[in-house]
Amino acid sequence: MTGEPREADVIVVGAGLSGLVAAREVLRAGFEPLVLEAADRVGGRILTEEPLPGVFLELGAQWIGDTHHRMTALADELGIELYPQFEDGETSYEFAGEVLRGEAFHGRYAEDVAAVERVLRELDAMAATVSVAEPWAAPRADEWDRITVGQWYDAQGLSPVGRELLEICTVGILAVPTVEVSLLGLLVNVVTCGVTADLLSESEGGAQTQRFVGGTAQIPLRLAAELGDRVVLDCPVLTVEHSAESVTVGCRGGPVARGRQVVVALAPTLAGRIMYDPPLPGKRDQLTQRMPQASAHKMFAVYDEPFWRADGLNAQLISDVGPARMSNDSCMPETSGGPGIILGFLEGENARIEGRWPAEQRIEAFREELARHFGPRAAKPELVVEGGWADREWTRGCYNANPGPCGWLHFGEALATPVGPIKWAATETALEWSGYMEGAVDAGVRAAREALAALA
Amino acid sequence: MTGEPREADVIVVGAGLSGLVAAREVLRAGFEPLVLEAADRVGGRILTEEPLPGVFLELGAQWIGDTHHRMTALADELGIELYPQFEDGETSYEFAGEVLRGEAFHGRYAEDVAAVERVLRELDAMAATVSVAEPWAAPRADEWDRITVGQWYDAQGLSPVGRELLEICTVGILAVPTVEVSLLGLLVNVVTCGVTADLLSESEGGAQTQRFVGGTAQIPLRLAAELGDRVVLDCPVLTVEHSAESVTVGCRGGPVARGRQVVVALAPTLAGRIMYDPPLPGKRDQLTQRMPQASAHKMFAVYDEPFWRADGLNAQLISDVGPARMSNDSCMPETSGGPGIILGFLEGENARIEGRWPAEQRIEAFREELARHFGPRAAKPELVVEGGWADREWTRGCYNANPGPCGWLHFGEALATPVGPIKWAATETALEWSGYMEGAVDAGVRAAREALAALA
Repeated sequence: MTGEPREADVIVVGAGLSGLVAAREVLRAGFEPLVLEAADRVGGRILTEEPLPGVFLELGAQWIGDTHHRMTALADELGIELYPQFEDGETSYEFAGEVLRGEAFHGRYAEDVAAVERVLRELDAMAATVSVAEPWAAPRADEWDRITVGQWYDAQGLSPVGRELLEICTVGILAVPTVEVSLLGLLVNVVTCGVTADLLSESEGGAQTQRFVGGTAQIPLRLAAELGDRVVLDCPVLTVEHSAESVTVGCRGGPVARGRQVVVALAPTLAGRIMYDPPLPGKRDQLTQRMPQASAHKMFAVYDEPFWRADGLNAQLISDVGPARMSNDSCMPETSGGPGIILGFLEGENARIEGRWPAEQRIEAFREELARHFGPRAAKPELVVEGGWADREWTRGCYNANPGPCGWLHFGEALATPVGPIKWAATETALEWSGYMEGAVDAGVRAAREALAALA
Repeated sequence: MTGEPREADVIVVGAGLSGLVAAREVLRAGFEPLVLEAADRVGGRILTEEPLPGVFLELGAQWIGDTHHRMTALADELGIELYPQFEDGETSYEFAGEVLRGEAFHGRYAEDVAAVERVLRELDAMAATVSVAEPWAAPRADEWDRITVGQWYDAQGLSPVGRELLEICTVGILAVPTVEVSLLGLLVNVVTCGVTADLLSESEGGAQTQRFVGGTAQIPLRLAAELGDRVVLDCPVLTVEHSAESVTVGCRGGPVARGRQVVVALAPTLAGRIMYDPPLPGKRDQLTQRMPQASAHKMFAVYDEPFWRADGLNAQLISDVGPARMSNDSCMPETSGGPGIILGFLEGENARIEGRWPAEQRIEAFREELARHFGPRAAKPELVVEGGWADREWTRGCYNANPGPCGWLHFGEALATPVGPIKWAATETALEWSGYMEGAVDAGVRAAREALAALA
């Protein structure tokens, strides 16, 4: 941003989904927002690539679930169509050195899977006692925030296959090893999303049922188009000076923006990097030191057609080896006649280890893995497109952030509590579907309304 | 910093002990350092207050140990005298609702204490297999970095009193609940400091045997005096632009400093807040998201004289209640005839809970606690001086930082590894006595030498 300082009623830091929705909410209420985005694009953790015409690969947020009514409504308003996630067919499992199709796996490991289901029911029962607004007030919060998810899983008497299956499904959500998040933290994820079946079930479940025709990135792009020159790119925020009446936001390489309120729509760890004046309370600062961004890396293999479907497979794999521990069918809508696309997920440890391998080595391992599950054709994709998030300067990890032990208990209260004219957005601060696009919208609207209430 | 850009060979970010030592090393080698400090004082986590003439209270770093040869030499060079920590007399224990003096406690709980000692020996044996330079390469690193210290302690079959005693002693070092640090992380602390007896023993042990006559703050003050106008205060660094040949460092409210190398002498979480251009590798960034500053708060009660000594007490308490879980005698040198001073430590959870109470409530609870241990005179200090670190903008927690589970395993390699012209100092990056002043010196010298090698 160069030239004279810009003025607005509400300065929004970050043009991810949450920030854009917040700005729209401000504009609709008759006030002027100004969105400052560090990157040269809008969207944040939404990032669609189009390597071939009409082929949209979601390196970031990809799905919404059936209960994501905010996102459904938003897509409808923006004129973006939905299409269902392809699910028909068997999942392929690789455990203990053997690849089995769904029916065979569930036959072989019926007891192991039943035991995992019992653990999920137990989690549901525990989650029913946790409030997302105040997880630290749950009757057993003190106990549950002092043990890790991994520690609690280890104590459930599961077989090695059952334990590994549960680990893979949980890492599919948290994107960190289960020893890095407290049990209370997992329960917060369960509550914010409904029940474990929506979240942790080995089927795609309720969180991932529909996609956007033409790519998720249309959502932030269209929101930004509505906002016009109220969105400023390449403007990394360094400083926020604030008083009860005003905020002054400084960016790298440019002058400042002035407003009356500010919505910081960044993941907590990034929000914590801004220099605030006066400084934030210690509780807030120590919280943002304790909510690291998780580790995720997506790999798309593109083929001439979805050949697995004729085999009765759904392109889903669950593997105790990797490099991808899970995968699914990421084709365009069935009517489009587009190519076959399998998406492999490297999450948590796999994002950190295989995700740092040289690309050639990683792609080779991925191709071999796909061939084990979906046959020799899978070894020869026409194209592999991939990407992680830790290296991306303005995101620094995906999908979201969860504190470790004692984080909720001792610091959680500071997560969404405004500090004077500073309101906190981003999906991590949502009460519903935190960690998802749905949560980004929830948080953006809530933060905007907090700012608007202060303007009124 | 105002006016024209300053030029130097090595820009040092942070005028804590590590940064000042680094700058001195650069100057002694015949090159020009420039130290940029965010605060209005030098010293970082060293902070001496003098509420009464000649009465020095260390709100930050206070002691050195007998094996801290770097610090002993530095004090000698700077003409600062040492005096021994007063240790004579019995410690007072408060467990299970009862206050007992040392001999009675050790009689009552002999088996519990012996069991704790066995656990410490076990830790020593484990630590002997860990290298501080490469903790992730230890034979059992993968296992030990996936469990928390608390989890491992819970599995050692200790009695409730033994387990609590071990918790208090460990929190006395880590300043966070033991469930927040991995077992490997604790072992790194043990190795970097020698053996558990130097670190975790309920006696003050090897790390805390001597103090500085006239206050610890003389060390950074004298180092800064040597550096003269090469130290710039009130200059919070926001940006570091770097290439193989040069660095440009931008501060809030001022122009820039230019140099050939930069030593960032900040705790990792603070180092991670600077905006680097080009951005740092993802591994480094995700590390600094995972090394939160711990939680410590010190409370000094000042009396007309050290009345406890005549009672055969050493002013040390160990309590399972708090608010201070430990205390000790913090008087001036015995020859000085100064007042009696007891220092109470609120660490980890106590810093977060009681440390956030209104001061009046906290001081009242502290006075009551001291009276339980040291008699009715202890309830009536002439003065209480106290302070935590989470609210201090340029420190944001004490004493130091330890990663949670998987932190060392997946990210530790990035802790001290230079990124082009950027070298990392601060005690957290030390190989010896990390977390202590001794480590700050070790790290500062090492980082300076890395920078000097690049200048040669």
